[in-house]
Order: sequence, then C-alpha cells, then structure tokens
Amino acid sequence: MEVKAKIKVNSRNLAHIYTPGVAEIVRAIMKDRERAYDLTWKGRTVAIVSDGSAILGIGNQGPEPALPVMEAKAVLFKELGGVDAVPIVLNSQNPHEIVKIVAALAPTFGGINLEDIAAPNCFIVESELKKMLPIPVFHDDQWGTAIVVLAGMINALSVVGKKIDEVKIMISGAGAAGIAVSKLLLGYGARHLIVCDSKGPIYSGRKTGMNFAKDEIAAHPCSKGACVDMTCSMRGMDVFIGLSKGGLLRSDDIKDMNEKAIVFALANPIPEIMPAEAVKGGAMVVATGRSDFPNQINNALAFPGVFQGALRYKTKDITEAMKIECAKRIARLIKKPTASCIIPKVMDRRVVATVAGVFRKKHR
Amino acid sequence: MEVKAKIKVNSRNLAHIYTPGVAEIVRAIMKDRERAYDLTWKGRTVAIVSDGSAILGIGNQGPEPALPVMEAKAVLFKELGGVDAVPIVLNSQNPHEIVKIVAALAPTFGGINLEDIAAPNCFIVESELKKMLPIPVFHDDQWGTAIVVLAGMINALSVVGKKIDEVKIMISGAGAAGIAVSKLLLGYGARHLIVCDSKGPIYSGRKTGMNFAKDEIAAHPCSKGACVDMTCSMRGMDVFIGLSKGGLLRSDDIKDMNEKAIVFALANPIPEIMPAEAVKGGAMVVATGRSDFPNQINNALAFPGVFQGALRYKTKDITEAMKIECAKRIARLIKKPTASCIIPKVMDRRVVATVAGVFRKKHR
Repeated sequence: MEVKAKIKVNSRNLAHIYTPGVAEIVRAIMKDRERAYDLTWKGRTVAIVSDGSAILGIGNQGPEPALPVMEAKAVLFKELGGVDAVPIVLNSQNPHEIVKIVAALAPTFGGINLEDIAAPNCFIVESELKKMLPIPVFHDDQWGTAIVVLAGMINALSVVGKKIDEVKIMISGAGAAGIAVSKLLLGYGARHLIVCDSKGPIYSGRKTGMNFAKDEIAAHPCSKGACVDMTCSMRGMDVFIGLSKGGLLRSDDIKDMNEKAIVFALANPIPEIMPAEAVKGGAMVVATGRSDFPNQINNALAFPGVFQGALRYKTKDITEAMKIECAKRIARLIKKPTASCIIPKVMDRRVVATVAGVFRKKHR
Repeated sequence: MEVKAKIKVNSRNLAHIYTPGVAEIVRAIMKDRERAYDLTWKGRTVAIVSDGSAILGIGNQGPEPALPVMEAKAVLFKELGGVDAVPIVLNSQNPHEIVKIVAALAPTFGGINLEDIAAPNCFIVESELKKMLPIPVFHDDQWGTAIVVLAGMINALSVVGKKIDEVKIMISGAGAAGIAVSKLLLGYGARHLIVCDSKGPIYSGRKTGMNFAKDEIAAHPCSKGACVDMTCSMRGMDVFIGLSKGGLLRSDDIKDMNEKAIVFALANPIPEIMPAEAVKGGAMVVATGRSDFPNQINNALAFPGVFQGALRYKTKDITEAMKIECAKRIARLIKKPTASCIIPKVMDRRVVATVAGVFRKKHR
C-alpha cells in the first residue's frame, strides 16, 4: 500500500498545497464542517479497524499479524469499490476502549469498517459505535457475510422452489457471522431457525456457553433451538448454513435433511462438507466460500459497494432494511438461477454499482 | 490523497493478495512481530496525528478543519521524504486520552508525527508517548522547527563571527516552537537565553502565565529571564528569534541590539519584523518563515529526512543528540554561508538524504 497525492507536486504548487494555501480550505471547513467530505479525503475514505482477536481462521494473534489482512482488505476496497481504505490495528482488545479509540478517530474518515474482531466483543463495539457516530459503521465479518448469504439464499430457494417463511433452517456457528446471518434471515422473513454452536442448539436458559448475542437470537419467537435434541440432528431441515469449522458433516447427515436440500458450507478454507459429498447426500444446491467450486459466497460482493454507496450518498447509518435490499439486488443480478449459479462472481463489475445504488436517498 | 496497492491487482492475484494467500504473511509475523516492518506498510508509514488545537496560525478549531493541513503534510512527507503518511485527526483534546488513543494505534505505524497540538498539552502527549512506544514519536511543530532554526543559527553565527556560548539570545514566544528551540539551543551550548511570552520574560517564580514547560526552561542555569525588565527590551542582545506573532517589532527595537545582530522573525505569514526593517535597524543576518525572502526557516527541511531515516534504520527514539546532529548537517550543506544564504532551500534534494543519514546506526 502507499498513500499519495492524486495530483503532481512541484515547487510551484507546494505553497498552494501546504501553508499558506491550505488555510483557505481550513477556513471553508471551519464555516461548515460538512465540507470536510468534499474538501478532504473524508468523503472517499474508510478506516478498516481490527484488534486482531479473530484473524481469518487463525484466531487471536493481536495487532501486528492482523495488519497484512487489513492491508489486503484495503486493496480490495480500492480495486473493487474505488474506496480509499486505511488499515488500522489496535493494541487493545477491550471493547469499551476500542469504542473510545474509534470514536476519537472518526472525524478523519467517512466510514468505519470493523474487521476480524471476535464475538461477542464485536457486537458491543459495533452497536456502541453505531449509536455514537454520525458516519456508517459496518462489521464486515457480520454483515458482509450476512448480505451475501441472504443473496445466495434468495436464489437457492427459487431453484428448489421453497419459500423463506416455510423452510426449516439450521445454522452451524454462533460467532460474528452466524449471529448476523441469523438476524438478517429473520429480518427477511425466516420463521424456523435453529442456531447451533459447539455446545449444541442455542435456546433461552441454556446453561453453558451463552452470551448476550446468543440470548438475543434465542429469545426470537422463530428461533427453535429448544425444539431439537442436543445432537443438532439435521432431520427435517431444508437449509443448512455452516459458518463454523471444516469437515463437520458427512453425506449421511445430508440424507437426514428434507428433499431438495440447500447446503451452504462456508467454513474456510475447508468447508463443513465438500460439495461432492453434499450432493451425494442429496443436496440440490450447494455453496461454499471457495473460488474453486461453483456458488462462492464471498463478502467482497458486498463491502466495496456498501461503502462506495454509503460514502457517495452520505448514509449516516447502514440499516437492516438496507442490508436486505443489498442482498435482494445482488440476487437479482442472476437472471435465471440454477443449482450451479445462484450468485454473481466477485469480479462481476455490475455488483458494486448495484449494491451502491441501494444507498441513494430516493431508495431510503 | 489516495491509498492504493503498489502492484496491479487482477482476478489472478486476488486470491494471493487476500485470503488464502495473506495467511502466509500473517504466520510469518506471528513468528516474529518485527517482520511487520518489511511484510506490511509499517516500515514505510507514519501517522500524522492532530487534535486540531493549534491549526497553523488559526488556532483551536477541532478535528475537521485540521484534516486538510494533515493531508497537505502527508503530501510533503511522500513527495520530499518518500514516506507514506496517514492523516489522523482526533475528536479529543485531553492529552491523557490522546496518549491512550495514539498508543493503541501504534502497532499500525512505523512512527508518529504529532502536529498542530497546542502547548502545553503537546509536551505531555509527546513525552508520555516517547516513554511508552517502541517507535519514534516526533512533534514537528516543536522539533522540526527547532532543528531548522539551529541549522540556520549555526551558519548565521559563522557569518557574524560570533560563538553560541557567547551570544545573548532572546526568544519571543513560549509555545511549542519557542520551548523546543530554547531546549535545542541550550543543548547545543547557548549560555545566555531569555525567553519571553505575551506577559514578558519567563523566570522561576513568575506569578502569571507559567506552565510546567516554561518552568523547566526558567529553571535552566543559562535562562536569564530574571535579569531583564518586563519590557523585554532588546538592549545588549546578539540574537532575536521570533516564534510569536507578526508585526511585534520596529527597526528601532533592532537598533537596541548589539552590532552584527541576527534576527530570525519566524511568525507566519507576517514576520515579527519585515526583513527590510530589520536591516534598517542594523541586523546583519535576517531569516523568516517565508519563501519570498532569503533564508527561509521551513521545517520541511527536517521532518521528511527525520522520518525517512528513523524508519529506514528503525530508530526507536529520536534523541536530542540526533536532532542537533540533523541541524549541524543541514548547516554544513551551505559551504560558504553569507548573510543572504544560511540555509538550503526546501527543494534542495540533498537535504533529505543528509538528514536521514543521521539515523544510520554507526552514527548513534
């Protein structure tokens, strides 16, 4: 990565760029702080903030090892979304401290993308910052994933001919992604959802391994964790969404599911079940997080367009309705969904513009 | 400004740049955190941090109006020093909070350049961060200015044929720059220094307008504020350094000075006294902060080389000895100093390399 002027600098324009020339810009922003959006990089730039507590599939390693991931993310922001992004890794894993730090940095940026912060701290950090800040805050591990899962699910359901409010859905994983996917599916109209973590299905009053985020899901009337046994059997399920760990399932598990099953096995780099095994077990639509199989669920389909749009249209808060609309429009880019084509490819240049369009004021 | 990849990104190298490719880099840094210096942008990148409490000559305006100044500074860092610099403006003016915030950000960067933070908070922020952080911390309004003033003074003294330990020096201004210039001159060997602020000369026990930084200067045995009257008369002075406000002096004030007087009138954009007036009053060498007069004292002669060198040679702390050495070497670039040529020009490309060379290990 490099940080550079968009114009050529020489001895002639130096005095104009720095003092005394810059004083004019300072005075314009003093009169109207909103002008920072067009007179500085604020209107084009987001911070990618991580505490290094949940790096890729590697885990909690602190700030330095997280830095190359944030840099890579910044490259994708720029290349896919035309958004300038500044990697920032923090030497603190206390969620309340992170909130204070990010809130203090916020005047510099047009938006905050939280990244690789472990659950449940990520929920505290995001919800506190959303309340405090006048700029959009988006935890990509949650919502980037959730938007793209919902987009894929919309088309997968149309392929199998089932409806969101009729299907029984099992989600494996109750971390950042599992919780956010659950919330967005419920927001979209799912009525029968079972979320499992390593201790089994989540339900209100479960004694171990609960937290406030799991409690919230468990308390939802459409959360049916209390209705199943502790083995998280897939019997009677229409949809399985894996956001947990590789190699969890075998084809026999899929055989327990209803006909025309949908299997999103999204653990990276090894899915919960390999696509061929899932098909052998009877799955009709299979998606993974990998680019070497059909139907890649990749959050790069969401975040570049989300921030391009949120910055361009000065969205103060990215709401659930906007996230659902993003998913719907991504899904709609596939004119005739089939079992092997439910979602656009990351390099499909239509995606970013489509997602960004959600944030135009007339749509809100 | 823009933030971008140094290499071209396409669908082929995308998987290498981001997951799964980036995991290799993560693991290398997990094994040895120092490798963040060469495997990420850390080794090439500084943060330019401001709370907007002392913007240029404009004053305390908070973060948004400070942002364009930090951007302009970042442009100079890149153009002059080849250093990537990230503007960061903070929504806090509490020095202890600023320390916590910057300390939390530090793993992201190879150095911290503090900018436009008002005295005396700037002294707290800098000294605390220097104690805490394993990366160089440099408040440019203090030390950039002090290095270049000392460089100019070394050559000015040679032009007038006087010695640092013999001259009587008056400094007008006891803010960030005035205090730092005083410290560096004392460190270089000045033995007779009077620092004045808007209330008159500074001395131990003065009742009003003192602070811990002024107390420290006042307590120095070579600080002679107690020896002069409250009018800050220039009688008997050899050197005047103005770091205060424009139009403070008339040529009659210069007439009170000793023969072959040196006048650095550095207030911007209007100097304490215009060069023609100073010469009329008998000054032999005159410098200002402006590019349209000879002898421009511009901290852009210091900071790009300071950070280029500190990053390249992984300097953990920028010491007073290093700052004095920077000044000496900048001065030495002028082979035969004259009254109208005591300091190199900002665009003189030798300056950055010369300053950066100070931080090579063999010189430390």
